[in-house]
Amino acid sequence: MIVVMAPNATAQQRETVMGKVKDLGLQPHVIEGVARTVIGLVGDKTGLSLGFLETLPGVEKAVPIMAPYKLASKDTKQEPTRVRVGDVEIGGEQLVVMAGPCAVESEEQLLSAASSCAAAGAQILRGGAFKPRTSPYSFQGLADHGLKLLAEVAKETGMSVVTEVIRAEDVELVGRYADMYQIGARNMQNFALLKEVGRARKPVLLKRGLSATVEEWLMAAEYILSEGNYQVVLCERGIRTFETATRNTLDLSAVPVVQAQSHLPIVVDPSHGTGHWRYVAAMSKAAVAAGADGLIVEVHPDPDSAVSDGSQSLRPEKFRKLMEQLQVLAPACGRRL
Amino acid sequence: MIVVMAPNATAQQRETVMGKVKDLGLQPHVIEGVARTVIGLVGDKTGLSLGFLETLPGVEKAVPIMAPYKLASKDTKQEPTRVRVGDVEIGGEQLVVMAGPCAVESEEQLLSAASSCAAAGAQILRGGAFKPRTSPYSFQGLADHGLKLLAEVAKETGMSVVTEVIRAEDVELVGRYADMYQIGARNMQNFALLKEVGRARKPVLLKRGLSATVEEWLMAAEYILSEGNYQVVLCERGIRTFETATRNTLDLSAVPVVQAQSHLPIVVDPSHGTGHWRYVAAMSKAAVAAGADGLIVEVHPDPDSAVSDGSQSLRPEKFRKLMEQLQVLAPACGRRL
Amino acid sequence: MIVVMAPNATAQQRETVMGKVKDLGLQPHVIEGVARTVIGLVGDKTGLSLGFLETLPGVEKAVPIMAPYKLASKDTKQEPTRVRVGDVEIGGEQLVVMAGPCAVESEEQLLSAASSCAAAGAQILRGGAFKPRTSPYSFQGLADHGLKLLAEVAKETGMSVVTEVIRAEDVELVGRYADMYQIGARNMQNFALLKEVGRARKPVLLKRGLSATVEEWLMAAEYILSEGNYQVVLCERGIRTFETATRNTLDLSAVPVVQAQSHLPIVVDPSHGTGHWRYVAAMSKAAVAAGADGLIVEVHPDPDSAVSDGSQSLRPEKFRKLMEQLQVLAPACGRRL
Amino acid sequence: MIVVMAPNATAQQRETVMGKVKDLGLQPHVIEGVARTVIGLVGDKTGLSLGFLETLPGVEKAVPIMAPYKLASKDTKQEPTRVRVGDVEIGGEQLVVMAGPCAVESEEQLLSAASSCAAAGAQILRGGAFKPRTSPYSFQGLADHGLKLLAEVAKETGMSVVTEVIRAEDVELVGRYADMYQIGARNMQNFALLKEVGRARKPVLLKRGLSATVEEWLMAAEYILSEGNYQVVLCERGIRTFETATRNTLDLSAVPVVQAQSHLPIVVDPSHGTGHWRYVAAMSKAAVAAGADGLIVEVHPDPDSAVSDGSQSLRPEKFRKLMEQLQVLAPACGRRL
Repeated sequence: MIVVMAPNATAQQRETVMGKVKDLGLQPHVIEGVARTVIGLVGDKTGLSLGFLETLPGVEKAVPIMAPYKLASKDTKQEPTRVRVGDVEIGGEQLVVMAGPCAVESEEQLLSAASSCAAAGAQILRGGAFKPRTSPYSFQGLADHGLKLLAEVAKETGMSVVTEVIRAEDVELVGRYADMYQIGARNMQNFALLKEVGRARKPVLLKRGLSATVEEWLMAAEYILSEGNYQVVLCERGIRTFETATRNTLDLSAVPVVQAQSHLPIVVDPSHGTGHWRYVAAMSKAAVAAGADGLIVEVHPDPDSAVSDGSQSLRPEKFRKLMEQLQVLAPACGRRL
Repeated sequence: MIVVMAPNATAQQRETVMGKVKDLGLQPHVIEGVARTVIGLVGDKTGLSLGFLETLPGVEKAVPIMAPYKLASKDTKQEPTRVRVGDVEIGGEQLVVMAGPCAVESEEQLLSAASSCAAAGAQILRGGAFKPRTSPYSFQGLADHGLKLLAEVAKETGMSVVTEVIRAEDVELVGRYADMYQIGARNMQNFALLKEVGRARKPVLLKRGLSATVEEWLMAAEYILSEGNYQVVLCERGIRTFETATRNTLDLSAVPVVQAQSHLPIVVDPSHGTGHWRYVAAMSKAAVAAGADGLIVEVHPDPDSAVSDGSQSLRPEKFRKLMEQLQVLAPACGRRL
Repeated sequence: MIVVMAPNATAQQRETVMGKVKDLGLQPHVIEGVARTVIGLVGDKTGLSLGFLETLPGVEKAVPIMAPYKLASKDTKQEPTRVRVGDVEIGGEQLVVMAGPCAVESEEQLLSAASSCAAAGAQILRGGAFKPRTSPYSFQGLADHGLKLLAEVAKETGMSVVTEVIRAEDVELVGRYADMYQIGARNMQNFALLKEVGRARKPVLLKRGLSATVEEWLMAAEYILSEGNYQVVLCERGIRTFETATRNTLDLSAVPVVQAQSHLPIVVDPSHGTGHWRYVAAMSKAAVAAGADGLIVEVHPDPDSAVSDGSQSLRPEKFRKLMEQLQVLAPACGRRL
Repeated sequence: MIVVMAPNATAQQRETVMGKVKDLGLQPHVIEGVARTVIGLVGDKTGLSLGFLETLPGVEKAVPIMAPYKLASKDTKQEPTRVRVGDVEIGGEQLVVMAGPCAVESEEQLLSAASSCAAAGAQILRGGAFKPRTSPYSFQGLADHGLKLLAEVAKETGMSVVTEVIRAEDVELVGRYADMYQIGARNMQNFALLKEVGRARKPVLLKRGLSATVEEWLMAAEYILSEGNYQVVLCERGIRTFETATRNTLDLSAVPVVQAQSHLPIVVDPSHGTGHWRYVAAMSKAAVAAGADGLIVEVHPDPDSAVSDGSQSLRPEKFRKLMEQLQVLAPACGRRL
């Protein structure tokens, strides 16, 4: 943390700031510049609340220097983390593809979707049993019954299951059926939920919040890690911007940014990231080329009758074609599929 | 909903779309334009999932015409809703001011803050007992003990209490001590929580999500209303934009926009909205002039030692001065304070 | 500027950075922190290009401390600047209202608009003779003829004229007819144009770019000031965000932010800021309460036949009513109208 | 265009709207819905200003259906446009790489950069002779001398030249030395400049504005096309969002979006798109996989002494390594390099 004094700050005001800094157990370190005096704060700031420094007379602003996360940072762990889900490992050479419908609607729908996804090479089945929906009048998911269907169908098709948990009290229940918890974008800062999956001992797929910076996203991961669960996979799924041609703006630069700052693996969701099935294949390939460790793609056997997000789901034949293209692309990116 | 056909769509493709529309129980209504054919969908679309229409061959896009909320809309109720909290009514001629510290830290701190807020004219005491914090290493709130302190201090100072609830399972507990639930920005789309306060019978202060459109915000209100709780007050608290001079960008135009679309009252939080105490007074006055029904302002007796958000809290003397200015301003805006 | 070294930076790498810093004529000042070493750069950085520091091995990032503008800053000039346009002064106690049609369409239209604006109390006539339009097929303005009409009608109605200039080579021409140049949002970083009006000796109304930070806006002002023209008035006109309920998001917090950083006056454009006539009155009042030095409002005698931006223009009777409300509001905000 | 009437609109108000629509030479087409009446406008709307419809009593809103551009649209031309620059064609199977320094600084610097770029396989030399800089105190470019150096060095290294033109009056001058004009992000809506390059007969590289939607970008292209110059190549270079980990957010989904809407080729600038050399290689590969027709990359022989944007320039050896990776990647994406 660097405190920047106002140009007209008095010596007295500077002394007050230095006194407060020392009271916190930190050492102030003064640099007299041409136009400003700045005070560097040396010491461990974990858990300290330093925002008040900006309210002291004579202070212009306080500038943080360090990222606020620790366990998620490369400072703590240099080598990439690999997260095992069923038979596959996310974060290694192998590309991992999670695929399936937005929502679990029926056994027939799920089995049809899962069979074609597995046949095309997807390793993990996705599908929502609890659906956070913008409208209270929309389909809210099959809940427990949906979880059971996921587990059954996954077993039948030889896949693992990733599914969303939206309430802390459902973590135990979901964990009985799923191989990996999904924390949705809307819950990225649902701290009670993050702590609860942090106490669980299953991998977590942590989606980026719609308007979360990479730093806030890594802080959300830190909540999970700090409870003792180190099996966290990040998922870029688009951020909110002014552009309306796509539902969200898929921020693929988050892939190299996360890889520069953190040891955690990162996958990409081109379905929510664009909101239109037309753009899913192009962005899937781009994600792989950007260095993503995997993809999570919506596939529906019959999008015409999907109860949610039909416009961004791939039909099975389009998914199969995409997987064929990824088979060619992966080796050119130093990956295998 | 308007379906726009692609310029090269075939008659067959148009027939397919019309068939699907009829299958949903809606009437298709065709307009042949110069460059495009569009199909209007007539009928009640509540609960229908129409996104799949965009995946049909020959369809260019589907454009919604109606706002998706009903109970929150002026279509349903023209006259403004008034929400009573303790002795005051939000949404009437009187300006309502909620003030207090960001977090409840101790009885001494809370009593000191509340006394000065009440003396300056604030009617409702704010203060967090459960704090959703970006960092797991930050102060997380006094929980139950904080709630008790709020209730005691409010009684002592003749105020009502608004405080945040962050988990569905705490709604009953918080309701024992608070006069009004606050749903924070991060939980605006925590639908389980929205439903739970919707089943409670106390007023709800619903903050706008950091990247929520006004439409999504009103849909979140709809979740509460649709469970039978009509006592909802909206709170604009800044949205996330590219600008970094302020923590958020306070969107005061949301005040007239909400008033044009909904019957629900709206208040403004200039503290979170700007993130800097320096800008709180200017934006408080602007909010009142824009037509807000009230304000919620952070006041701390000693921001230097605040455990959270110290940089945006007003010291009591600055709050008193602001209230004096609002006393002058309110009548010029057709309000009384 | 603060250079933050990576945690694993070598002593050698730090020496290299310090050597480069000294080569630039600056003094490096090292602070050894617990987790990072930071190097403060002391000296005059005007005109230096320091971005390359981030490419040096062992450097994590470089953090600027000072605002990059000088002449526009309060460091250079503490007292507020007042800019005289015709008979009025912008930046003093008096609120200044600029009003008129978006585009000059005909003498009849302009005279009708100007007469009603003047009668309602507006002091400066606005109206575009050169129109930067998103579509090449839209009306592009009356050019020279429009300028002449503006000058004639202003004289007849006792007003001054502010009008947009969009090309450097038109600065002289526009200056012959206008009392104040307007630089539009799209041209905020048209540096050739900024320099040209900087060389002129007439006041400049500098609109904020659609996605410009306050800092970039003040840098644009710096271009004008650095050419010797100190008569610059800033104009907040809305920024681009994800919200679509309004055309732009009017960032009223820019008013106190600018006043904290700069001595230049600031006015607000609620017409472009919201894009809808319905919201213009509320946001005009909010702007005055936030501390703006004036307003610029679109008024059209007959918006039905306006050739541009009809949806955000006030009809004369609505403008008159707004001015009456401002007459009541201004004194409550320490202003007179 | 669809006009949506308010729920309480009178028959009289509807008649007025229909009358106005007919006055414009359009046919109104009424659809009576359950909750709203909507009026479709049939006919050619080119050049009409329809915004005023929203100001008519009883009108809730007006919703455009068609994209406002024509010549840039796939409606007008289905097959992809190919733009020839020197020996290469942009928009065909071949990937085109433009590379070079941000600014032309000296013959030595330019020749060194160009030689290494050409040796690595770049076909077009980039470099700015006129630099639009945020600060008036920054290096503004070598102007005419820079243009001459570009032409000489390009000849010597067997490359073509793309360089930015920032003023309409320089179009002729720049055209004497360059093979392709670059319109920078800040000038994307400098309509005078667009028209001028539209009258020239050389290819134009049109960068996307920092906060431009894809639609506005295509409208800017329309300005050039409508003057008769059909050789336009679009360049995605990052948009402004809330994320600060990168200078801009590179919107790679713009590649498939543009390809769905327009016949114009599109290239990507990962240097400005991310602002950090560390992320340039990952995003270059992602751009190619997303389907981009080419790249424009900043390469500097010695970024430590670059006078602008040093932090985003690749050193020659890193560029060479990137080109080797692209040699492998291109065939896997159906391209050749």
